[in-house]
Amino acid sequence: MTASSPRIVAVDTYDIRFPTSRELDGSDAMNPDPDYSAAYVVLRTDVEDGLEGHGFTFTIGRGNEVQVAALDALRPHLVGRPVDDVCADPSSVSNDLTGDSQLRWLGPEKGVMHMAIGAVVNAVWDLAAKRAHKPLWQFLAEAEPEWLAEQVDYRYIADVLSPAEAIGLLERGREGAAQRAADLRAIGYPGYTTSAGWLGYPDDKLIRLAKQAVADGFTQIKLKVGADLSDDIRRCGAARAAVGPDIRIAIDANQRWNVDEAVAWVQVLAEFEPYWIEEPTSPDDVLGHAAIRRAVAPVKVATGEHVQNRVIFKQLLQAGALDVLQIDAARVGGVNENLAILLLAAKYGVPVCPHAGGVGLCELVQHLSMFDYVALSGSTEDRVIEYVDHLHEHFTDPVRIVRGHYAAPSAPGFSAQMHQQSIDTYRYPDGTFWRADRAGRKGAA
Amino acid sequence: MTASSPRIVAVDTYDIRFPTSRELDGSDAMNPDPDYSAAYVVLRTDVEDGLEGHGFTFTIGRGNEVQVAALDALRPHLVGRPVDDVCADPSSVSNDLTGDSQLRWLGPEKGVMHMAIGAVVNAVWDLAAKRAHKPLWQFLAEAEPEWLAEQVDYRYIADVLSPAEAIGLLERGREGAAQRAADLRAIGYPGYTTSAGWLGYPDDKLIRLAKQAVADGFTQIKLKVGADLSDDIRRCGAARAAVGPDIRIAIDANQRWNVDEAVAWVQVLAEFEPYWIEEPTSPDDVLGHAAIRRAVAPVKVATGEHVQNRVIFKQLLQAGALDVLQIDAARVGGVNENLAILLLAAKYGVPVCPHAGGVGLCELVQHLSMFDYVALSGSTEDRVIEYVDHLHEHFTDPVRIVRGHYAAPSAPGFSAQMHQQSIDTYRYPDGTFWRADRAGRKGAA
Repeated sequence: MTASSPRIVAVDTYDIRFPTSRELDGSDAMNPDPDYSAAYVVLRTDVEDGLEGHGFTFTIGRGNEVQVAALDALRPHLVGRPVDDVCADPSSVSNDLTGDSQLRWLGPEKGVMHMAIGAVVNAVWDLAAKRAHKPLWQFLAEAEPEWLAEQVDYRYIADVLSPAEAIGLLERGREGAAQRAADLRAIGYPGYTTSAGWLGYPDDKLIRLAKQAVADGFTQIKLKVGADLSDDIRRCGAARAAVGPDIRIAIDANQRWNVDEAVAWVQVLAEFEPYWIEEPTSPDDVLGHAAIRRAVAPVKVATGEHVQNRVIFKQLLQAGALDVLQIDAARVGGVNENLAILLLAAKYGVPVCPHAGGVGLCELVQHLSMFDYVALSGSTEDRVIEYVDHLHEHFTDPVRIVRGHYAAPSAPGFSAQMHQQSIDTYRYPDGTFWRADRAGRKGAA
Repeated sequence: MTASSPRIVAVDTYDIRFPTSRELDGSDAMNPDPDYSAAYVVLRTDVEDGLEGHGFTFTIGRGNEVQVAALDALRPHLVGRPVDDVCADPSSVSNDLTGDSQLRWLGPEKGVMHMAIGAVVNAVWDLAAKRAHKPLWQFLAEAEPEWLAEQVDYRYIADVLSPAEAIGLLERGREGAAQRAADLRAIGYPGYTTSAGWLGYPDDKLIRLAKQAVADGFTQIKLKVGADLSDDIRRCGAARAAVGPDIRIAIDANQRWNVDEAVAWVQVLAEFEPYWIEEPTSPDDVLGHAAIRRAVAPVKVATGEHVQNRVIFKQLLQAGALDVLQIDAARVGGVNENLAILLLAAKYGVPVCPHAGGVGLCELVQHLSMFDYVALSGSTEDRVIEYVDHLHEHFTDPVRIVRGHYAAPSAPGFSAQMHQQSIDTYRYPDGTFWRADRAGRKGAA
């Protein structure tokens, strides 16, 4: 590198919170009043065109400042790095961050510190895809198998996935990729909607939104369950009556149950033919999920939005604990670790149906599923990306849903960037919304 | 409660760092240069005698400020609570903290946020034991089984441990407890030492310290391994020659290996008859530990210092992945979760040999093992507490080692309190040590 090669010159972090709890949007059995939030990071460079990489961790309110502190702790690893090196090998950043021996103590590879690493790594991929003038899904799908395989950290998964196997899966995945990319651009990637099923919504709203979802072209909806069994029976019955027998209804307990409770509860709800039960218990309980799956079949078991890293996903697959693997774009260590997880799912032949919603999770994760379809799994059968119609207006390249499908993004990057106006409005505690809100409360008091 | 009942009136937090990396104390295969640190919390009350509860999370340097941010995030849950309520039922605090639906998103029950909860919960137990004028081990050992069983959160472990079973284990544990308490006060609890075996130490220092350990009455030592196999062969051979055949030598890889590497490496070192292999791979890899254990027997498998919570411990026991369960006082959610883990170990008949060292971990965890001996497991057979001779001088009630045994503490509380002078000196970045250190570096530059 010459002295004048462009570099990352600053890492700016933001605590952004939306007051979603006031409408019970996003309410479920474990999360009654979330304030959807983002610990947001921008990698600034001195590239002449003003190139930036954007990334974030999604949280639900309190503690977002702890995530920001974790982002700040990563700054010394980033400032001064040559942009060309970072873009040529994002794993160089990913491995340095997860390998920092002192920061590693705070996980390892889990919780606040790992989520912050994921945000930064995703910002690096945003940077790399923008510099290549491609949307991230295309950037990944057109990358060489050898290079993609090198982006994966095989530590702790080498017992089930070798670099050579990864290359083999990626080479197999390229067969027919051009046609699938064309199909993707024409049709999009199937989605399903959770917007009808929040626990805090009254039945008439649930029924209205469920019917609307079908009219909009969705073939799967999802209901939150797990707080009260008689409520769940009533709501599942109402939803099934509203959508008819041919629409898949997923149910989601958000970790509310112990193993035995999960089995008993799902067996009662089985009469409404739920397609999957999501997060029946702790995301850490590999053996518990396996026991539940054996007991509730043919209802499928899905989990992943809170699974901390590739090591737990590996075991969920080894133990036969999953029918549906739900990646989250912003919980694990970013694109690099999600590549590992997609490869593990491909090896075990388990379909990936991402978690999304929150703030910007739809925007991010669509790229990973589209890459998976075009250049790895090669299929959208039994694969759907969660869709929730919240907060997309804050993003410069928001998702577009057409007849129940995610339209393929065409703008360069990872679709991770928020409008500056949104940042200025919802920065906590000093954004214009929050200042006005406090003034209003004082006025009312 | 009357309006004048005493309350928690402030929660003070401190970022305390010791420059241990300069001596390679604590160096191992994953942590080459730790700066032993504490994210330290003091619960101040308006009790007339100045009652305070002290607790901390141990870290190894960078990121300690993120832990402090997490402690700060818990303050609103604590300030204003009546001291009598908190002391009568520490689980009321523990359950509120782990159950905060927004903070829970940052785990759940793992990583930075959970470690901060552990520090606060431990501070609550320090408060409760001090108010009862008993050292914590005695406070726990003399508590009613029903009350102790109520201190446990059974969520996600109810499939293997019910409240009734917990009460049964605790009632069984009380038989002969008075005699064991007397024995404990007379003899102490067996320890083992890691002070000889840090990876950064030259062989002559290792040999000298190993011989010294035997002379001091220890019957087990521990060596760090995993960076270089030929080094490990040489060091294990030197240590075995130094201590003879009757001293147990544990080896500790600090998560360095994949599953297959662990098996191969331990099979080579087996000629030196290691007693256990500690942390052979990721602490998250339950099935990996089970596979390693099957392959390396009769060498025992030990892990736990980085195990995030009771859910992973439950599975390690369910899967037959462990011969030795290593609790850590300051990684999981404090005394309440460690009670759950001790009960799980008792149910499965697996001996508990705590991780200690770092900053103050010996001071804390001795109380848990002593309770376990007096009132739960009823035995010290094959049970030893790790001992490392670092940094005890900073505590007001430091551990005392007598003929290889931890002497039973007699001062009220959890032995968690640091000298104010130590806090003032090693606060980062503004303590007197760090200010002088920066001034010295500037002078040298």
